Amino acid sequence: MSQFRYLTFLTDYGLDDGFVAACHGVAARLAPHATVIDVTHLVPPGDVRRGAAVLAQTVPYLPPAVHVAVVDPGVGTSRRAIAVAAGESVFVGPDNGLLSWAVTAAGGASRAVSLTNRGLWLNTVTATFHGRDIFMPVAANLSAGADLASAGEDIDLADLVWLPPPSRRVRDFTAEGEVLTVDRFGNVQLTITAADASDIGLKPGGSALVIAGRRQLTLPFRETFGTVASGELVVHTDGAGMVAIAVNGGNAAQRLGLPPGARVSISPTPHTIQP
Amino acid sequence: MSQFRYLTFLTDYGLDDGFVAACHGVAARLAPHATVIDVTHLVPPGDVRRGAAVLAQTVPYLPPAVHVAVVDPGVGTSRRAIAVAAGESVFVGPDNGLLSWAVTAAGGASRAVSLTNRGLWLNTVTATFHGRDIFMPVAANLSAGADLASAGEDIDLADLVWLPPPSRRVRDFTAEGEVLTVDRFGNVQLTITAADASDIGLKPGGSALVIAGRRQLTLPFRETFGTVASGELVVHTDGAGMVAIAVNGGNAAQRLGLPPGARVSISPTPHTIQP
Amino acid sequence: MSQFRYLTFLTDYGLDDGFVAACHGVAARLAPHATVIDVTHLVPPGDVRRGAAVLAQTVPYLPPAVHVAVVDPGVGTSRRAIAVAAGESVFVGPDNGLLSWAVTAAGGASRAVSLTNRGLWLNTVTATFHGRDIFMPVAANLSAGADLASAGEDIDLADLVWLPPPSRRVRDFTAEGEVLTVDRFGNVQLTITAADASDIGLKPGGSALVIAGRRQLTLPFRETFGTVASGELVVHTDGAGMVAIAVNGGNAAQRLGLPPGARVSISPTPHTIQP
Repeated sequence: MSQFRYLTFLTDYGLDDGFVAACHGVAARLAPHATVIDVTHLVPPGDVRRGAAVLAQTVPYLPPAVHVAVVDPGVGTSRRAIAVAAGESVFVGPDNGLLSWAVTAAGGASRAVSLTNRGLWLNTVTATFHGRDIFMPVAANLSAGADLASAGEDIDLADLVWLPPPSRRVRDFTAEGEVLTVDRFGNVQLTITAADASDIGLKPGGSALVIAGRRQLTLPFRETFGTVASGELVVHTDGAGMVAIAVNGGNAAQRLGLPPGARVSISPTPHTIQP
Repeated sequence: MSQFRYLTFLTDYGLDDGFVAACHGVAARLAPHATVIDVTHLVPPGDVRRGAAVLAQTVPYLPPAVHVAVVDPGVGTSRRAIAVAAGESVFVGPDNGLLSWAVTAAGGASRAVSLTNRGLWLNTVTATFHGRDIFMPVAANLSAGADLASAGEDIDLADLVWLPPPSRRVRDFTAEGEVLTVDRFGNVQLTITAADASDIGLKPGGSALVIAGRRQLTLPFRETFGTVASGELVVHTDGAGMVAIAVNGGNAAQRLGLPPGARVSISPTPHTIQP
Repeated sequence: MSQFRYLTFLTDYGLDDGFVAACHGVAARLAPHATVIDVTHLVPPGDVRRGAAVLAQTVPYLPPAVHVAVVDPGVGTSRRAIAVAAGESVFVGPDNGLLSWAVTAAGGASRAVSLTNRGLWLNTVTATFHGRDIFMPVAANLSAGADLASAGEDIDLADLVWLPPPSRRVRDFTAEGEVLTVDRFGNVQLTITAADASDIGLKPGGSALVIAGRRQLTLPFRETFGTVASGELVVHTDGAGMVAIAVNGGNAAQRLGLPPGARVSISPTPHTIQP
C-alpha cells in the first residue's frame, strides 16, 4: 500500500486536556511526513451517532487519508478495533458503528481487518486511551506505508457493526424523518434529503407544512436563510444536501425545541404542490 | 502572482461541527503545498464587527498569506464575494465589511475583484456554505499561483463595503470611545489607543478617571495588570496597542458589566495631568 | 544546537480571540521550517497548576521539540522568562513553576537560561503579551538553530521556581492524595499512582474503599470503566498511569462533587487485600 500524506482525526476528547495533543505527538513520531487534519474533537462524550454523522458529511471534502475516529464508550472491553479500506481512504477506529456512515460516503468497504498486531501499537497500552495507544499508532504506521494486512487478520465485512441509517420515509406528498444534527448556529438538519423534498413536490419558492410533535408550522422553502427577514423561520437545503430548518440570524433548535432524534415531517402546502 | 505558502482562516463556524475541517480538506486538495493557520472559528455567529476586530489585530503578526475570513449572515443573497490585495497579502471573504479593518492594517487595498469566475469554485456550490464551496477554493487557487484577475472582474475600491472605524474622540483632556472587544480573560479593550492616552496626558504611573454609564471610577494606569494587587482594577495598554481595563487575576467585563459597544471615557485625574 | 522540527504550544489564551494565531504567525515568520503542535489553549485563566499537569502528562508522547507554555498571571512583572533544556527538548515559558513537572517528566533540567537577549524577541514588546512578543520568538529562534546560550545568561537550576509535587502519601493499606485534574468526561484523576495502588494491595478485580470528605464509598477497582454497568462508579488506572474515579457513560466529578485539590484516600476493602 502506498503512503498517505494525510491523517484526519475526530474524537470526543474535547480540547481542554492534552489528549488530542498526545495523539498528534504519536503521529509526529511515527509518521513525520504526514499532516493531520482535525475534523472535530467536540463530539458530545460517547455520542457515536453524532460522530458518525459529522464524519460522513465531512469526508467527501477531505483528501484521501487514513481517517482516525474515536468515540469509544466501550474502550477496553471486548469491542473490536478495526481498519476499513473504502474508496481511496482507510478508516481506523472502534467497531461500534462510528465509521459506518463515512465508509458508505467514501464508496463502501472493500476490506476490513481487526487491529490485533501489537507490533503497530505503542509499546505500552493503557486500558482507557486506545486513541493514543492503538488507533493513532496503527493509523500512523499505515500512512507511512504499512500494508493493511499487517495490522491484523481480515474480518468479514458483514460482521462489522453498522449504525442503522438515518430514519426517513417518503410517501405521497410527505417526507417523514428526524433531526440528524443541530449545528453551532442552531440549524436543525433533518434526515430528509434534498432529493426527498423534490420527490414530494417541494421546491424553492414554495412553502412547507412542518409537523414536529404537536406543533404545525407553515414555513417558506428557500435556497438560503438569508432570503427571509431577520428572525424568521425558513426551510432550506443545507451544505450537506439535507433539508434543514433555520432562523435567519437566530437559533432554530432553541426556538422550536428540536433536539437530535426528534421526529419531523414535511410536506408542500396544497397550493405549492407542483405535479 | 507568485505562490503563497500560507492560508489563514477565520470564521464563526465553531468547532463542534465538521465545517472548518471540510474547508481544510478543500485547501489540502487544491493547495497541498500550503499551510493553514487558523485565526479563530469562535466569532459569535454573524458578529461581523467582532470578526473584523480580531482579524485586524492578528494580521500584523501573520506571515504574508491568502487570508480567508467568513462571517457571512448574508450568504446566498446578493452580497458580493471578494478578494482584496493589500500589502503583501490577499484577503478573501464576503463584501460585508468583515475584511475592511484588516485590509487597512495590512496597508490598504491596492486592488479588488468580485469572485465571479466559477472555474475557481468547487464544481457544486450550495447556497449556504460558501466558505467551503467558494471562498476557500478561490483562496487555495490563489495560493497555488492563480492570478487575482482570474478570480473575477475588477471592482472599484470605493465600492467595497466598509465598516465604520471604531468610534473614538479625543478633546481637551478626555478620550471618549467604546468597548471594542472583551477577551477570554474579561479584559475590556477600548477603541481608545495608547497614542490617545498619551495625547490627553495619561501616562503609566498616573491614574485615570473612567466614566462608563453612571459609573465613575478612579483607576491606576499601569504598564500591566500584574503590578496592582490581586483583584484590583487597572487601566493599561494591551497587546494590540489599545487602552484596556483589567482586573489582576479577575474578569473586568463581568465586574463592570461592560459589553462590546458600551460607551467609555477616560481622562487623567487632575493631579496626574502632565502638560 | 541542532534544529528542532517541532514547536509545541500550551496556554490559557482560549480560542475565542486571535492570541494563539498571532503566536502561530510569529512562529511561521521566524521558523517556517517548524510544525506547531497545540497542546491545549483552554487551561483555566491563570491556573498554573493545571497547565503544569496537562503539559507533564502530554510531553512523554510529544516528539523532541521546543515546548512553549504560557500561563502567566505575572506577565510584565519581575518574574523571569526562562528556557530550560531537559532530555532532548527545550522548555520555554515564565519561571513560575508551569514548566517544572514537565521538565521532570522529560528527564530533569540539564541547563537553564534567563531570556534577557532582546535580539531574539520581537522588535516591539508589549507589557501583557509576552507569549507573542518574547516566548514564541525565542522558541522559534531556538528551533531554527540558535544556541540556548544566545537567549540569555545561565541561571542556577536550584533557583528555578518549582511547583510542589502533587501531594500523596502511602502508609499501611491506605493511599492518601488529592484530585489532580478533572477531564472533559468528568473523570477524577488523583495524585495517587498505579504503583501506589499496587503497593497497598489494590488490584484490578478487587474493590476499593474511597473516602472523600464525609463520603465513604466502596467501589469496584477495574481495568477500565467500560467493565461496569452504565451509570456505575468505578476506580481504575487512567491513560497517564494515575488512579482515577469514573462513571461509565457519566461524569464522576459532578456526581461526587470533587474538584481539583479535594482530598481523597483509597484503600482496598478488607476481603480484597492481597498480601
